Amino acid sequence: MFKATSELRVRYVETDQMGYSHHSNYIIYYEYGRVEALRSLGMSYKELEGSGVMMPVIDSGSKYLKPALYDDLIKIEVIVPSLPTVRMRFEYKLYVNDVLINEGHTTLAFVDIKTGRPMRPPNSMLHLLKPFYE
Amino acid sequence: MFKATSELRVRYVETDQMGYSHHSNYIIYYEYGRVEALRSLGMSYKELEGSGVMMPVIDSGSKYLKPALYDDLIKIEVIVPSLPTVRMRFEYKLYVNDVLINEGHTTLAFVDIKTGRPMRPPNSMLHLLKPFYE
Amino acid sequence: MFKATSELRVRYVETDQMGYSHHSNYIIYYEYGRVEALRSLGMSYKELEGSGVMMPVIDSGSKYLKPALYDDLIKIEVIVPSLPTVRMRFEYKLYVNDVLINEGHTTLAFVDIKTGRPMRPPNSMLHLLKPFYE
Amino acid sequence: MFKATSELRVRYVETDQMGYSHHSNYIIYYEYGRVEALRSLGMSYKELEGSGVMMPVIDSGSKYLKPALYDDLIKIEVIVPSLPTVRMRFEYKLYVNDVLINEGHTTLAFVDIKTGRPMRPPNSMLHLLKPFYE
Repeated sequence: MFKATSELRVRYVETDQMGYSHHSNYIIYYEYGRVEALRSLGMSYKELEGSGVMMPVIDSGSKYLKPALYDDLIKIEVIVPSLPTVRMRFEYKLYVNDVLINEGHTTLAFVDIKTGRPMRPPNSMLHLLKPFYE
Repeated sequence: MFKATSELRVRYVETDQMGYSHHSNYIIYYEYGRVEALRSLGMSYKELEGSGVMMPVIDSGSKYLKPALYDDLIKIEVIVPSLPTVRMRFEYKLYVNDVLINEGHTTLAFVDIKTGRPMRPPNSMLHLLKPFYE
Repeated sequence: MFKATSELRVRYVETDQMGYSHHSNYIIYYEYGRVEALRSLGMSYKELEGSGVMMPVIDSGSKYLKPALYDDLIKIEVIVPSLPTVRMRFEYKLYVNDVLINEGHTTLAFVDIKTGRPMRPPNSMLHLLKPFYE
Repeated sequence: MFKATSELRVRYVETDQMGYSHHSNYIIYYEYGRVEALRSLGMSYKELEGSGVMMPVIDSGSKYLKPALYDDLIKIEVIVPSLPTVRMRFEYKLYVNDVLINEGHTTLAFVDIKTGRPMRPPNSMLHLLKPFYE
Protein backbone atom coordinates (compact mmCIF):
# COMPACT_ATOMS: atom_id res chain seq x y z
CA MET A 1 0.00 0.00 0.00
CA PHE A 2 1.17 3.49 -0.74
CA LYS A 3 1.47 5.64 2.38
CA ALA A 4 3.02 9.06 2.90
CA THR A 5 3.35 11.55 5.72
CA SER A 6 3.52 15.33 5.75
CA GLU A 7 3.16 18.10 8.31
CA LEU A 8 1.48 21.47 8.59
CA ARG A 9 0.73 24.00 11.30
CA VAL A 10 -2.69 25.32 12.26
CA ARG A 11 -2.88 28.96 11.14
CA TYR A 12 -4.50 31.69 13.21
CA VAL A 13 -7.06 32.36 10.48
CA GLU A 14 -8.17 28.72 10.79
CA THR A 15 -9.20 29.05 14.44
CA ASP A 16 -12.77 29.86 15.42
CA GLN A 17 -14.27 31.40 18.52
CA MET A 18 -14.34 28.01 20.27
CA GLY A 19 -10.53 28.25 20.04
CA TYR A 20 -10.40 25.23 17.70
CA SER A 21 -9.31 24.80 14.12
CA HIS A 22 -12.75 25.08 12.46
CA HIS A 23 -13.99 21.71 11.20
CA SER A 24 -14.06 22.98 7.60
CA ASN A 25 -10.26 23.10 7.58
CA TYR A 26 -9.77 19.33 7.72
CA ILE A 27 -10.82 18.76 4.13
CA ILE A 28 -8.20 21.38 3.17
CA TYR A 29 -5.62 19.56 5.30
CA TYR A 30 -6.55 16.37 3.41
CA GLU A 31 -5.95 18.13 0.10
CA TYR A 32 -2.59 19.35 1.36
CA GLY A 33 -1.63 15.84 2.49
CA ARG A 34 -2.82 14.33 -0.79
CA VAL A 35 -0.81 16.73 -2.94
CA GLU A 36 2.32 16.21 -0.82
CA ALA A 37 1.80 12.42 -0.91
CA LEU A 38 1.70 12.53 -4.73
CA ARG A 39 4.78 14.77 -4.74
CA SER A 40 6.67 12.28 -2.56
CA LEU A 41 5.74 9.60 -5.10
CA GLY A 42 7.23 11.74 -7.87
CA MET A 43 3.96 13.14 -9.25
CA SER A 44 2.92 16.75 -9.36
CA TYR A 45 -0.81 17.39 -9.28
CA LYS A 46 -0.06 20.62 -11.12
CA GLU A 47 1.57 18.71 -13.99
CA LEU A 48 -1.30 16.23 -13.96
CA GLU A 49 -3.77 19.05 -14.65
CA GLY A 50 -1.30 20.48 -17.15
CA SER A 51 -1.45 17.15 -19.02
CA GLY A 52 -5.25 17.39 -19.30
CA VAL A 53 -6.42 15.29 -16.33
CA MET A 54 -8.33 16.70 -13.40
CA MET A 55 -9.30 14.89 -10.24
CA PRO A 56 -12.50 16.28 -8.73
CA VAL A 57 -13.50 15.03 -5.27
CA ILE A 58 -16.74 13.03 -5.47
CA ASP A 59 -17.22 12.06 -1.84
CA SER A 60 -15.67 12.69 1.55
CA GLY A 61 -16.15 11.81 5.18
CA SER A 62 -14.55 12.92 8.46
CA LYS A 63 -14.51 12.02 12.12
CA TYR A 64 -13.42 14.90 14.33
CA LEU A 65 -12.01 13.11 17.38
CA LYS A 66 -10.19 15.89 19.19
CA PRO A 67 -9.75 19.57 18.41
CA ALA A 68 -6.57 20.96 16.85
CA LEU A 69 -5.46 24.25 18.36
CA TYR A 70 -3.69 27.30 16.99
CA ASP A 71 -0.05 26.62 16.05
CA ASP A 72 -0.40 22.85 16.57
CA LEU A 73 1.85 20.88 14.26
CA ILE A 74 -0.36 18.29 12.55
CA LYS A 75 1.12 15.10 11.12
CA ILE A 76 -0.98 13.93 8.15
CA GLU A 77 -0.78 10.29 7.18
CA VAL A 78 -2.21 9.54 3.75
CA ILE A 79 -3.00 6.00 2.64
CA VAL A 80 -4.06 4.81 -0.80
CA PRO A 81 -5.66 1.45 0.08
CA SER A 82 -5.74 0.05 -3.47
CA LEU A 83 -4.62 0.76 -7.01
CA PRO A 84 -6.90 3.38 -8.59
CA THR A 85 -9.34 2.45 -11.34
CA VAL A 86 -11.65 5.21 -12.60
CA ARG A 87 -11.69 6.37 -8.99
CA MET A 88 -9.00 6.81 -6.38
CA ARG A 89 -9.60 6.54 -2.66
CA PHE A 90 -7.41 8.34 -0.14
CA GLU A 91 -7.59 7.75 3.61
CA TYR A 92 -6.25 10.21 6.16
CA LYS A 93 -5.16 10.05 9.78
CA LEU A 94 -4.17 13.28 11.49
CA TYR A 95 -2.05 13.38 14.63
CA VAL A 96 -0.96 16.09 17.05
CA ASN A 97 1.81 14.99 19.41
CA ASP A 98 1.17 11.37 18.34
CA VAL A 99 -2.50 11.56 19.37
CA LEU A 100 -5.00 10.76 16.62
CA ILE A 101 -7.29 13.81 16.30
CA ASN A 102 -9.11 13.20 13.01
CA GLU A 103 -9.66 10.52 10.44
CA GLY A 104 -11.30 10.74 7.07
CA HIS A 105 -11.38 9.78 3.44
CA THR A 106 -12.01 11.25 0.02
CA THR A 107 -12.78 9.60 -3.30
CA LEU A 108 -11.58 11.35 -6.44
CA ALA A 109 -12.47 10.69 -10.06
CA PHE A 110 -10.20 11.00 -13.07
CA VAL A 111 -11.75 13.37 -15.61
CA ASP A 112 -10.53 14.42 -19.03
CA ILE A 113 -10.42 18.23 -18.86
CA LYS A 114 -11.25 18.66 -22.57
CA THR A 115 -14.25 16.34 -22.77
CA GLY A 116 -15.38 16.42 -19.12
CA ARG A 117 -15.62 12.63 -19.26
CA PRO A 118 -14.41 10.09 -16.69
CA MET A 119 -11.20 8.33 -17.71
CA ARG A 120 -8.73 5.80 -16.40
CA PRO A 121 -5.73 7.00 -14.37
CA PRO A 122 -2.73 8.09 -16.45
CA ASN A 123 -0.17 5.34 -17.04
CA SER A 124 2.54 7.48 -15.46
CA MET A 125 0.61 7.36 -12.17
CA LEU A 126 -0.13 3.63 -12.36
CA HIS A 127 3.52 2.97 -13.14
CA LEU A 128 4.61 4.78 -9.97
CA LEU A 129 1.93 3.20 -7.77
CA LYS A 130 2.07 -0.45 -8.90
CA PRO A 131 5.18 -1.45 -6.92
CA PHE A 132 3.28 -0.67 -3.69
CA TYR A 133 0.57 -3.26 -4.42
CA GLU A 134 2.61 -6.28 -5.48
CA MET B 1 -39.54 16.10 10.98
CA PHE B 2 -38.05 19.56 11.15
CA LYS B 3 -37.03 20.86 7.74
CA ALA B 4 -35.90 24.32 6.63
CA THR B 5 -34.66 25.96 3.47
CA SER B 6 -32.27 28.84 2.86
CA GLU B 7 -30.30 30.26 -0.04
CA LEU B 8 -26.81 31.55 -0.70
CA ARG B 9 -24.74 32.52 -3.70
CA VAL B 10 -21.36 31.07 -4.66
CA ARG B 11 -18.75 33.78 -4.07
CA TYR B 12 -15.85 34.41 -6.44
CA VAL B 13 -13.36 33.59 -3.67
CA GLU B 14 -14.95 30.14 -3.41
CA THR B 15 -14.16 29.17 -7.01
CA ASP B 16 -11.03 27.23 -7.88
CA GLN B 17 -9.07 26.94 -11.09
CA MET B 18 -11.38 24.16 -12.33
CA GLY B 19 -14.04 26.89 -12.32
CA TYR B 20 -16.01 25.10 -9.60
CA SER B 21 -16.90 26.02 -6.06
CA HIS B 22 -14.06 24.18 -4.27
CA HIS B 23 -15.31 21.07 -2.47
CA SER B 24 -14.21 22.48 0.91
CA ASN B 25 -16.97 25.10 0.70
CA TYR B 26 -19.83 22.65 1.09
CA ILE B 27 -19.24 22.05 4.77
CA ILE B 28 -19.38 25.84 5.18
CA TYR B 29 -22.63 25.92 3.20
CA TYR B 30 -23.95 23.22 5.58
CA GLU B 31 -23.03 25.40 8.56
CA TYR B 32 -24.81 28.34 6.96
CA GLY B 33 -27.91 26.24 6.30
CA ARG B 34 -27.87 24.84 9.83
CA VAL B 35 -27.64 28.24 11.49
CA GLU B 36 -30.43 29.63 9.30
CA ALA B 37 -32.56 26.52 9.96
CA LEU B 38 -32.21 27.08 13.73
CA ARG B 39 -32.99 30.79 13.24
CA SER B 40 -36.19 29.90 11.35
CA LEU B 41 -37.14 27.69 14.30
CA GLY B 42 -36.68 30.64 16.63
CA MET B 43 -33.24 29.70 17.99
CA SER B 44 -30.05 31.67 17.62
CA TYR B 45 -26.84 29.63 17.67
CA LYS B 46 -25.16 32.78 18.99
CA GLU B 47 -27.48 32.87 21.99
CA LEU B 48 -27.01 29.14 22.49
CA GLU B 49 -23.25 29.66 22.89
CA GLY B 50 -24.00 32.71 25.02
CA SER B 51 -26.01 30.47 27.35
CA GLY B 52 -23.01 28.14 27.81
CA VAL B 53 -23.70 25.40 25.25
CA MET B 54 -21.50 24.72 22.25
CA MET B 55 -22.14 22.28 19.43
CA PRO B 56 -18.92 20.97 17.92
CA VAL B 57 -19.20 18.89 14.76
CA ILE B 58 -18.11 15.30 15.42
CA ASP B 59 -18.57 13.76 12.01
CA SER B 60 -19.50 14.74 8.48
CA GLY B 61 -19.95 13.25 5.04
CA SER B 62 -20.58 14.64 1.56
CA LYS B 63 -21.41 13.49 -1.92
CA TYR B 64 -20.45 16.00 -4.60
CA LEU B 65 -22.85 15.18 -7.41
CA LYS B 66 -22.45 18.17 -9.72
CA PRO B 67 -20.29 21.28 -9.51
CA ALA B 68 -21.63 24.63 -8.36
CA LEU B 69 -20.35 27.58 -10.38
CA TYR B 70 -19.58 31.19 -9.57
CA ASP B 71 -22.69 33.24 -8.74
CA ASP B 72 -24.95 30.17 -8.70
CA LEU B 73 -27.81 30.56 -6.24
CA ILE B 74 -27.78 27.44 -4.06
CA LYS B 75 -30.91 26.30 -2.26
CA ILE B 76 -29.98 24.47 0.95
CA GLU B 77 -32.50 22.08 2.43
CA VAL B 78 -31.74 21.08 6.01
CA ILE B 79 -33.44 18.13 7.67
CA VAL B 80 -33.25 17.05 11.30
CA PRO B 81 -34.35 13.40 11.01
CA SER B 82 -35.03 12.82 14.73
CA LEU B 83 -35.20 14.63 18.04
CA PRO B 84 -31.67 15.24 19.34
CA THR B 85 -30.33 13.33 22.35
CA VAL B 86 -26.69 14.01 23.31
CA ARG B 87 -26.11 14.29 19.58
CA MET B 88 -27.94 16.03 16.79
CA ARG B 89 -27.88 14.90 13.19
CA PHE B 90 -28.46 17.30 10.31
CA GLU B 91 -28.92 16.20 6.71
CA TYR B 92 -28.44 18.53 3.75
CA LYS B 93 -29.56 18.61 0.15
CA LEU B 94 -28.22 21.38 -2.07
CA TYR B 95 -29.92 22.42 -5.30
CA VAL B 96 -29.04 24.77 -8.15
CA ASN B 97 -31.99 25.46 -10.48
CA ASP B 98 -33.85 22.55 -8.85
CA VAL B 99 -31.05 20.09 -9.69
CA LEU B 100 -29.58 18.24 -6.72
CA ILE B 101 -25.84 19.00 -6.72
CA ASN B 102 -24.69 17.82 -3.29
CA GLU B 103 -25.94 15.85 -0.32
CA GLY B 104 -24.37 15.42 3.06
CA HIS B 105 -24.77 15.19 6.79
CA THR B 106 -23.12 16.35 9.98
CA THR B 107 -23.45 15.11 13.54
CA LEU B 108 -23.01 17.65 16.32
CA ALA B 109 -22.58 17.10 20.05
CA PHE B 110 -23.91 19.27 22.86
CA VAL B 111 -21.03 20.34 25.11
CA ASP B 112 -21.07 22.42 28.28
CA ILE B 113 -18.63 25.26 27.55
CA LYS B 114 -17.54 25.57 31.21
CA THR B 115 -16.83 21.91 31.91
CA GLY B 116 -16.09 20.68 28.37
CA ARG B 117 -18.46 17.75 29.07
CA PRO B 118 -21.18 16.34 26.82
CA MET B 119 -24.67 17.33 27.89
CA ARG B 120 -28.28 16.94 26.82
CA PRO B 121 -29.82 19.50 24.46
CA PRO B 122 -31.22 22.61 26.18
CA ASN B 123 -34.92 22.37 27.04
CA SER B 124 -35.60 25.51 25.01
CA MET B 125 -34.43 23.67 21.89
CA LEU B 126 -36.34 20.46 22.65
CA HIS B 127 -39.45 22.52 23.31
CA LEU B 128 -39.23 24.11 19.85
CA LEU B 129 -38.41 20.85 18.06
CA LYS B 130 -40.89 18.45 19.71
CA PRO B 131 -43.97 19.49 17.72
CA PHE B 132 -42.20 18.33 14.52
CA TYR B 133 -41.89 14.73 15.80
CA GLU B 134 -45.37 14.06 17.17
CA MET C 1 -21.46 59.22 -7.67
CA PHE C 2 -22.58 55.64 -7.80
CA LYS C 3 -23.29 54.21 -4.36
CA ALA C 4 -24.92 50.94 -3.32
CA THR C 5 -25.62 49.11 -0.10
CA SER C 6 -25.84 45.41 0.72
CA GLU C 7 -25.84 43.24 3.82
CA LEU C 8 -24.23 40.02 5.01
CA ARG C 9 -23.86 38.15 8.26
CA VAL C 10 -20.59 37.10 9.89
CA ARG C 11 -20.34 33.31 9.60
CA TYR C 12 -19.02 31.11 12.38
CA VAL C 13 -16.15 29.90 10.17
CA GLU C 14 -15.04 33.53 9.85
CA THR C 15 -14.46 34.00 13.59
CA ASP C 16 -11.04 33.48 15.14
CA GLN C 17 -9.96 32.64 18.65
CA MET C 18 -10.07 36.33 19.65
CA GLY C 19 -13.82 35.99 19.00
CA TYR C 20 -13.62 38.45 16.08
CA SER C 21 -14.25 38.08 12.38
CA HIS C 22 -10.65 37.51 11.26
CA HIS C 23 -9.22 40.57 9.48
CA SER C 24 -8.73 38.56 6.26
CA ASN C 25 -12.51 38.38 5.80
CA TYR C 26 -12.97 42.08 5.08
CA ILE C 27 -11.48 41.90 1.62
CA ILE C 28 -13.99 39.11 0.93
CA TYR C 29 -16.78 41.29 2.30
CA TYR C 30 -15.58 44.03 -0.10
CA GLU C 31 -15.79 41.59 -3.02
CA TYR C 32 -19.30 40.63 -1.95
CA GLY C 33 -20.34 44.29 -1.71
CA ARG C 34 -18.76 45.09 -5.08
CA VAL C 35 -20.53 42.26 -6.89
CA GLU C 36 -23.87 43.17 -5.32
CA ALA C 37 -23.30 46.86 -6.15
CA LEU C 38 -22.74 45.95 -9.81
CA ARG C 39 -25.82 43.72 -9.73
CA SER C 40 -27.95 46.59 -8.37
CA LEU C 41 -26.66 48.68 -11.29
CA GLY C 42 -27.85 46.00 -13.72
CA MET C 43 -24.45 44.36 -14.36
CA SER C 44 -23.45 40.83 -13.57
CA TYR C 45 -19.75 40.27 -12.90
CA LYS C 46 -20.31 36.72 -14.11
CA GLU C 47 -21.55 37.96 -17.49
CA LEU C 48 -18.68 40.43 -17.64
CA GLU C 49 -16.18 37.55 -17.41
CA GLY C 50 -18.35 35.60 -19.83
CA SER C 51 -17.94 38.45 -22.32
CA GLY C 52 -14.14 38.22 -22.08
CA VAL C 53 -13.32 40.91 -19.50
CA MET C 54 -11.80 40.18 -16.12
CA MET C 55 -11.18 42.63 -13.32
CA PRO C 56 -8.22 41.64 -11.19
CA VAL C 57 -7.61 43.59 -7.97
CA ILE C 58 -4.35 45.55 -8.18
CA ASP C 59 -4.29 47.26 -4.82
CA SER C 60 -6.25 47.35 -1.60
CA GLY C 61 -6.22 48.98 1.81
CA SER C 62 -8.21 48.57 5.02
CA LYS C 63 -8.69 50.22 8.37
CA TYR C 64 -10.08 47.86 11.00
CA LEU C 65 -11.82 50.25 13.39
CA LYS C 66 -13.89 47.89 15.52
CA PRO C 67 -14.27 44.12 15.49
CA ALA C 68 -17.25 42.38 13.89
CA LEU C 69 -18.59 39.47 15.93
CA TYR C 70 -20.23 36.18 15.02
CA ASP C 71 -23.70 36.60 13.51
CA ASP C 72 -23.36 40.39 13.27
CA LEU C 73 -25.29 41.80 10.34
CA ILE C 74 -22.85 44.00 8.40
CA LYS C 75 -24.10 46.78 6.17
CA ILE C 76 -21.66 47.33 3.30
CA GLU C 77 -21.69 50.69 1.56
CA VAL C 78 -19.84 50.71 -1.76
CA ILE C 79 -18.88 53.94 -3.48
CA VAL C 80 -17.40 54.39 -6.95
CA PRO C 81 -15.86 57.88 -6.62
CA SER C 82 -15.34 58.52 -10.35
CA LEU C 83 -16.05 57.04 -13.77
CA PRO C 84 -13.62 54.18 -14.45
CA THR C 85 -10.86 54.56 -17.03
CA VAL C 86 -8.44 51.60 -17.38
CA ARG C 87 -8.86 51.25 -13.64
CA MET C 88 -11.86 51.33 -11.34
CA ARG C 89 -11.69 52.38 -7.71
CA PHE C 90 -14.21 51.14 -5.15
CA GLU C 91 -14.46 52.49 -1.62
CA TYR C 92 -16.14 50.61 1.22
CA LYS C 93 -17.66 51.54 4.56
CA LEU C 94 -18.88 48.72 6.79
CA TYR C 95 -21.37 49.27 9.58
CA VAL C 96 -22.78 47.11 12.38
CA ASN C 97 -25.81 48.66 14.09
CA ASP C 98 -24.98 51.97 12.36
CA VAL C 99 -21.48 52.05 13.85
CA LEU C 100 -18.65 52.29 11.31
CA ILE C 101 -16.39 49.27 11.93
CA ASN C 102 -14.16 49.19 8.84
CA GLU C 103 -13.29 51.29 5.83
CA GLY C 104 -11.24 50.37 2.83
CA HIS C 105 -10.73 50.55 -0.90
CA THR C 106 -9.70 48.39 -3.81
CA THR C 107 -8.52 49.30 -7.30
CA LEU C 108 -9.34 46.91 -10.11
CA ALA C 109 -8.02 46.80 -13.64
CA PHE C 110 -9.91 45.83 -16.80
CA VAL C 111 -8.09 42.99 -18.55
CA ASP C 112 -8.90 41.24 -21.82
CA ILE C 113 -9.09 37.54 -20.85
CA LYS C 114 -7.82 36.34 -24.26
CA THR C 115 -4.79 38.61 -24.57
CA GLY C 116 -4.09 39.30 -20.89
CA ARG C 117 -3.80 42.99 -21.79
CA PRO C 118 -5.28 46.00 -19.99
CA MET C 119 -8.30 47.45 -21.71
CA ARG C 120 -10.88 50.19 -21.30
CA PRO C 121 -14.11 49.42 -19.44
CA PRO C 122 -16.87 47.87 -21.59
CA ASN C 123 -19.29 50.40 -23.05
CA SER C 124 -22.20 48.60 -21.41
CA MET C 125 -20.69 49.44 -18.01
CA LEU C 126 -19.89 53.05 -18.89
CA HIS C 127 -23.40 53.50 -20.22
CA LEU C 128 -24.89 52.38 -16.88
CA LEU C 129 -22.46 54.43 -14.77
CA LYS C 130 -22.43 57.74 -16.67
CA PRO C 131 -25.73 59.11 -15.33
CA PHE C 132 -24.23 59.04 -11.81
CA TYR C 133 -21.44 61.47 -12.74
CA GLU C 134 -23.30 64.16 -14.66
CA MET D 1 16.24 46.36 11.18
CA PHE D 2 14.69 42.99 11.87
CA LYS D 3 14.07 40.98 8.72
CA ALA D 4 13.07 37.34 8.25
CA THR D 5 12.20 35.06 5.38
CA SER D 6 9.87 32.07 5.12
CA GLU D 7 8.24 30.05 2.37
CA LEU D 8 4.85 28.59 1.58
CA ARG D 9 3.13 27.00 -1.39
CA VAL D 10 -0.08 28.15 -3.03
CA ARG D 11 -2.79 25.58 -2.20
CA TYR D 12 -5.37 24.44 -4.72
CA VAL D 13 -8.19 25.78 -2.52
CA GLU D 14 -6.60 29.23 -2.79
CA THR D 15 -6.91 29.42 -6.58
CA ASP D 16 -9.90 31.08 -8.23
CA GLN D 17 -11.45 30.68 -11.64
CA MET D 18 -8.98 33.18 -13.15
CA GLY D 19 -6.37 30.52 -12.26
CA TYR D 20 -4.72 32.88 -9.73
CA SER D 21 -4.30 32.74 -6.00
CA HIS D 22 -7.29 34.88 -5.01
CA HIS D 23 -6.25 38.32 -3.76
CA SER D 24 -7.76 37.63 -0.32
CA ASN D 25 -5.03 35.07 0.36
CA TYR D 26 -2.20 37.58 0.56
CA ILE D 27 -3.23 38.92 3.94
CA ILE D 28 -3.18 35.32 5.17
CA TYR D 29 0.29 34.87 3.66
CA TYR D 30 1.34 38.02 5.55
CA GLU D 31 0.04 36.51 8.79
CA TYR D 32 1.96 33.33 8.09
CA GLY D 33 5.16 35.27 7.37
CA ARG D 34 4.70 37.41 10.49
CA VAL D 35 4.22 34.42 12.79
CA GLU D 36 7.24 32.64 11.31
CA ALA D 37 9.31 35.85 11.55
CA LEU D 38 8.49 36.08 15.27
CA ARG D 39 9.29 32.38 15.69
CA SER D 40 12.71 32.89 14.06
CA LEU D 41 13.32 35.69 16.57
CA GLY D 42 12.55 33.29 19.41
CA MET D 43 8.97 34.44 20.08
CA SER D 44 5.82 32.40 19.76
CA TYR D 45 2.65 34.35 19.00
CA LYS D 46 0.78 31.53 20.73
CA GLU D 47 2.71 32.11 23.96
CA LEU D 48 2.23 35.86 23.59
CA GLU D 49 -1.56 35.37 23.64
CA GLY D 50 -1.12 32.84 26.45
CA SER D 51 0.62 35.59 28.45
CA GLY D 52 -2.38 37.90 28.04
CA VAL D 53 -1.35 40.04 25.06
CA MET D 54 -3.15 40.03 21.74
CA MET D 55 -2.14 41.84 18.59
CA PRO D 56 -5.14 42.76 16.43
CA VAL D 57 -4.45 44.14 12.96
CA ILE D 58 -5.55 47.77 12.72
CA ASP D 59 -4.65 48.57 9.13
CA SER D 60 -3.31 46.86 6.04
CA GLY D 61 -2.43 47.58 2.44
CA SER D 62 -1.41 45.51 -0.57
CA LYS D 63 -0.14 45.91 -4.09
CA TYR D 64 -0.82 42.88 -6.27
CA LEU D 65 1.91 43.12 -8.90
CA LYS D 66 1.77 39.71 -10.54
CA PRO D 67 -0.44 36.68 -9.95
CA ALA D 68 0.71 33.66 -7.96
CA LEU D 69 -0.34 30.35 -9.46
CA TYR D 70 -1.25 26.99 -7.98
CA ASP D 71 1.70 25.19 -6.38
CA ASP D 72 3.98 28.23 -6.69
CA LEU D 73 6.51 28.41 -3.90
CA ILE D 74 6.27 31.92 -2.43
CA LYS D 75 9.18 33.46 -0.54
CA ILE D 76 7.88 35.91 2.06
CA GLU D 77 10.23 38.60 3.30
CA VAL D 78 9.06 40.32 6.47
CA ILE D 79 10.59 43.59 7.65
CA VAL D 80 9.96 45.40 10.93
CA PRO D 81 11.12 48.93 10.02
CA SER D 82 11.34 50.28 13.58
CA LEU D 83 11.10 49.22 17.22
CA PRO D 84 7.41 48.85 18.16
CA THR D 85 5.76 51.32 20.52
CA VAL D 86 2.02 50.83 21.15
CA ARG D 87 1.87 49.76 17.51
CA MET D 88 4.03 47.47 15.41
CA ARG D 89 4.40 47.83 11.66
CA PHE D 90 5.31 44.88 9.44
CA GLU D 91 6.22 45.20 5.76
CA TYR D 92 6.08 42.30 3.33
CA LYS D 93 7.62 41.47 -0.01
CA LEU D 94 6.54 38.26 -1.75
CA TYR D 95 8.59 36.59 -4.45
CA VAL D 96 8.06 33.68 -6.82
CA ASN D 97 11.25 32.56 -8.56
CA ASP D 98 12.94 35.78 -7.39
CA VAL D 99 10.30 37.95 -9.07
CA LEU D 100 8.48 40.37 -6.75
CA ILE D 101 4.76 39.59 -7.05
CA ASN D 102 3.23 41.44 -4.11
CA GLU D 103 4.12 44.00 -1.49
CA GLY D 104 2.16 45.12 1.51
CA HIS D 105 2.11 46.13 5.13
CA THR D 106 0.06 45.66 8.27
CA THR D 107 -0.03 47.63 11.51
CA LEU D 108 -0.84 45.73 14.68
CA ALA D 109 -1.71 47.05 18.12
CA PHE D 110 -0.77 45.53 21.47
CA VAL D 111 -3.90 44.92 23.52
CA ASP D 112 -4.29 43.57 27.06
CA ILE D 113 -6.67 40.60 26.65
CA LYS D 114 -8.21 41.07 30.13
CA THR D 115 -8.94 44.78 29.94
CA GLY D 116 -9.20 45.22 26.17
CA ARG D 117 -6.92 48.26 26.50
CA PRO D 118 -3.93 49.21 24.35
CA MET D 119 -0.59 48.49 26.03
CA ARG D 120 3.13 48.72 25.34
CA PRO D 121 4.89 45.74 23.81
CA PRO D 122 6.03 43.09 26.31
CA ASN D 123 9.61 43.55 27.54
CA SER D 124 10.48 40.06 26.32
CA MET D 125 9.75 41.17 22.76
CA LEU D 126 11.58 44.49 23.07
CA HIS D 127 14.57 42.67 24.52
CA LEU D 128 14.75 40.38 21.48
CA LEU D 129 14.19 43.18 18.94
CA LYS D 130 16.49 45.92 20.35
CA PRO D 131 19.78 44.52 19.01
CA PHE D 132 18.43 44.96 15.46
CA TYR D 133 17.99 48.74 15.87
CA GLU D 134 21.29 49.76 17.49
